[in-house]
Amino acid sequence: MKTYIQPSPDKWEEICRKRAVDESGLQEKVGSILSLVRNDGDKALLDMAVRFDRVKEGLLQQINPDCPLKVTEEEFAAAQGKVAPEVKAAIAKAKDNIESFHTRQKACDYSVETVPGVVCSYKRVPIRRVGLYIPGGTAPLFSTVLMLAVPAQIAGCPDVILCTPPRADGSVDEHILYTAKLCGITTVYKCGGAGAIAAMAYGTESITKRDKIFGPGNHFVMKAKQMVQGDGVAIDMPAGPSEVMVLADETAVPAFVAADLLSQAEHGVNSQAVLVCTSEGIAKAVQAEIDRQLRVLPRQELLLKSLEGSFMCVLKDRDDMLSFAETYAPEHLILSVDDPSELASRVYRAGSVFLGNYSPESAGDYASGTNHTLPTSSWARSFSGVGVESFCRHISFQGLSPEGLRGLSDTIRTMADAEGLAAHSAAVTVRLSSLEEACPE
Amino acid sequence: MKTYIQPSPDKWEEICRKRAVDESGLQEKVGSILSLVRNDGDKALLDMAVRFDRVKEGLLQQINPDCPLKVTEEEFAAAQGKVAPEVKAAIAKAKDNIESFHTRQKACDYSVETVPGVVCSYKRVPIRRVGLYIPGGTAPLFSTVLMLAVPAQIAGCPDVILCTPPRADGSVDEHILYTAKLCGITTVYKCGGAGAIAAMAYGTESITKRDKIFGPGNHFVMKAKQMVQGDGVAIDMPAGPSEVMVLADETAVPAFVAADLLSQAEHGVNSQAVLVCTSEGIAKAVQAEIDRQLRVLPRQELLLKSLEGSFMCVLKDRDDMLSFAETYAPEHLILSVDDPSELASRVYRAGSVFLGNYSPESAGDYASGTNHTLPTSSWARSFSGVGVESFCRHISFQGLSPEGLRGLSDTIRTMADAEGLAAHSAAVTVRLSSLEEACPE
Repeated sequence: MKTYIQPSPDKWEEICRKRAVDESGLQEKVGSILSLVRNDGDKALLDMAVRFDRVKEGLLQQINPDCPLKVTEEEFAAAQGKVAPEVKAAIAKAKDNIESFHTRQKACDYSVETVPGVVCSYKRVPIRRVGLYIPGGTAPLFSTVLMLAVPAQIAGCPDVILCTPPRADGSVDEHILYTAKLCGITTVYKCGGAGAIAAMAYGTESITKRDKIFGPGNHFVMKAKQMVQGDGVAIDMPAGPSEVMVLADETAVPAFVAADLLSQAEHGVNSQAVLVCTSEGIAKAVQAEIDRQLRVLPRQELLLKSLEGSFMCVLKDRDDMLSFAETYAPEHLILSVDDPSELASRVYRAGSVFLGNYSPESAGDYASGTNHTLPTSSWARSFSGVGVESFCRHISFQGLSPEGLRGLSDTIRTMADAEGLAAHSAAVTVRLSSLEEACPE
Repeated sequence: MKTYIQPSPDKWEEICRKRAVDESGLQEKVGSILSLVRNDGDKALLDMAVRFDRVKEGLLQQINPDCPLKVTEEEFAAAQGKVAPEVKAAIAKAKDNIESFHTRQKACDYSVETVPGVVCSYKRVPIRRVGLYIPGGTAPLFSTVLMLAVPAQIAGCPDVILCTPPRADGSVDEHILYTAKLCGITTVYKCGGAGAIAAMAYGTESITKRDKIFGPGNHFVMKAKQMVQGDGVAIDMPAGPSEVMVLADETAVPAFVAADLLSQAEHGVNSQAVLVCTSEGIAKAVQAEIDRQLRVLPRQELLLKSLEGSFMCVLKDRDDMLSFAETYAPEHLILSVDDPSELASRVYRAGSVFLGNYSPESAGDYASGTNHTLPTSSWARSFSGVGVESFCRHISFQGLSPEGLRGLSDTIRTMADAEGLAAHSAAVTVRLSSLEEACPE
């Protein structure tokens, strides 16, 4: 891995610059998929299942004649029997912890009488219609179902659907169905990619359009999510390739650090795994461990390619390491340092933070309880990871009594007049005049 | 105003469809402004001040030779003396109420031991660098300074700047400077429009780039805000023309309702003011009042044009009115009905709600305490108005002890293996092996 030795701070931004993904032609391709689904609805999705997911023509219609895109109750039931007991047990434990963490993200609603007769309130409500996208693949990431469905359930979203691509035999992976059902989701549609995003954004004959769309995906999916925002649909967050940054001092264990960097690299060729440490010795020890561990892992080519795009950086001390991390704004930040809590207390720009030598990123990815849907590509400067709040919105309320309005009238009218908004002022005057007519002083 | 009498629910979505603003050529124009500022920095902004704000060439450099774009301390001091005492008093009262409401938006941080030895925390932190945009004009909306600066201050954002276009004489409106200073903002730059958004998004020689940009503006500004998101900068919310919906039954006062619709229309030709009521009688009475009140208001042409694009809708009862409002998802929702609290408790899709006959929208616009920066264009389905949270983000933390990791290891590895992520699994194994070596059982 490329190693920077004590680069000066003025070079940090350039070092931290995230690799731009080649997007040439992507907007056009995705744009045409969005249009296709917008115009042809279910038919477009069924065509795409044949074209992209290699489902035999007519197969989905055979499985569910009433609603070919929809997973049937029978399919849900069959899934129950196909998931291994130990996997069910693991999912149950992970779900418990994720619930335990997320239920504490409470509403904190309140009411306050800002001045006599003026009562203002703030209330959190669930977003009504949300859509979760879960990518397909040979080993679908069903853990993401937990990470999205659990907070949606806690938020109380009344209408949650899930879209995921069908396999060539027209079925959906049993782990996804099992986990969805466990989380109370029984409306699952067999569609994937940008087409699924379009369906959830615009609606089709079968799929009611969503207020907000969540979930990871390939660059087609990510582009589609970005583009549908222009048409009034909200998304969880802008997304990019996954990333981890490990800060390591002499207390770090090179074998552990190497394992964490490799587990990040496993996410894909564009993933970035960054080591920041306080000596060249640590960097060298970790590199040696990476080389050693790599030899016994599958998909070495993918890992090597990902590491090619990653780097190590040796800096003076923990303060410099922290400043560098703040410049990078990593999705995952692992603090393999002495007194990690102290350093953690000064973090502002990271998605999720892992303290100490026994907190691998995989703990957070699956089961510690925190959410693994986190901001990448420096979005950790301004975005949070998914939480219950992501599935909610806040409404403000105000109720003024006649006396309350009287008390506030000078303030409102003076400001409205200064802003040249006569009708704003008049809306107060008409009420005061009416009160005076009713009760002339 | 166009009136729909008892339209069937299947027609509601079409009726509620927000007018599309003509955007032809806008993306290109704004795109070139963004590029210009990105490439030429301060120089581009100074050129734009001459071109668009009609500032005499060299004037800004005269006022502040060190940093021509920056408002000087002297200018701030001069502004203090130019704001009328009654306006200062009004601003102070409004600020008090806005603070009173927003300080209650507390952090609600927590820690939880999800399972023994696994401690997870959730912490709210301020976004570091935020930029507030305040449009110019003959009577700038300085109330928006309060609405953005107060929550930014409560959030604890350490670096808040404000951009606003200069007047032709090179100065900034005194109300903006006065209000900014009152809220602790002393870094104000003289630049406007899409150029200012670009400056805050990309940074220039004088202006450090922002993590998040807030504030209203014309369609150039709104388009610029939308476009810079593609370059990694967050914005407060997507924006469109302002809107109000009044729900009115027999207890409503037609003169008050008319005044509220007119005060909304005053915001601009694309603003929409909608009356939903339970009888044609109410609709007619409100129309009569609109006609009457219009005659004594300034800018009648603007008001008429705005009302042209607005409408009235007569529905059966309060439940239908609420369902219609939910379909429209209005920025402002005024409940001029009997028992407004009951109806308010069932609202999910509105920005800010006004209860009863003495709660005009102008109360919320200026001084009740709630925020007036609210989601338009049906974004109230998924977005909240600006609040303290808008200036913050959440970080999750997890710290596992060796025992905690041991306890979670089966869960993590089982799930990682089922998802085909061997390195994720290995990151746990390497630690457990090390523990066993240290303390063989």
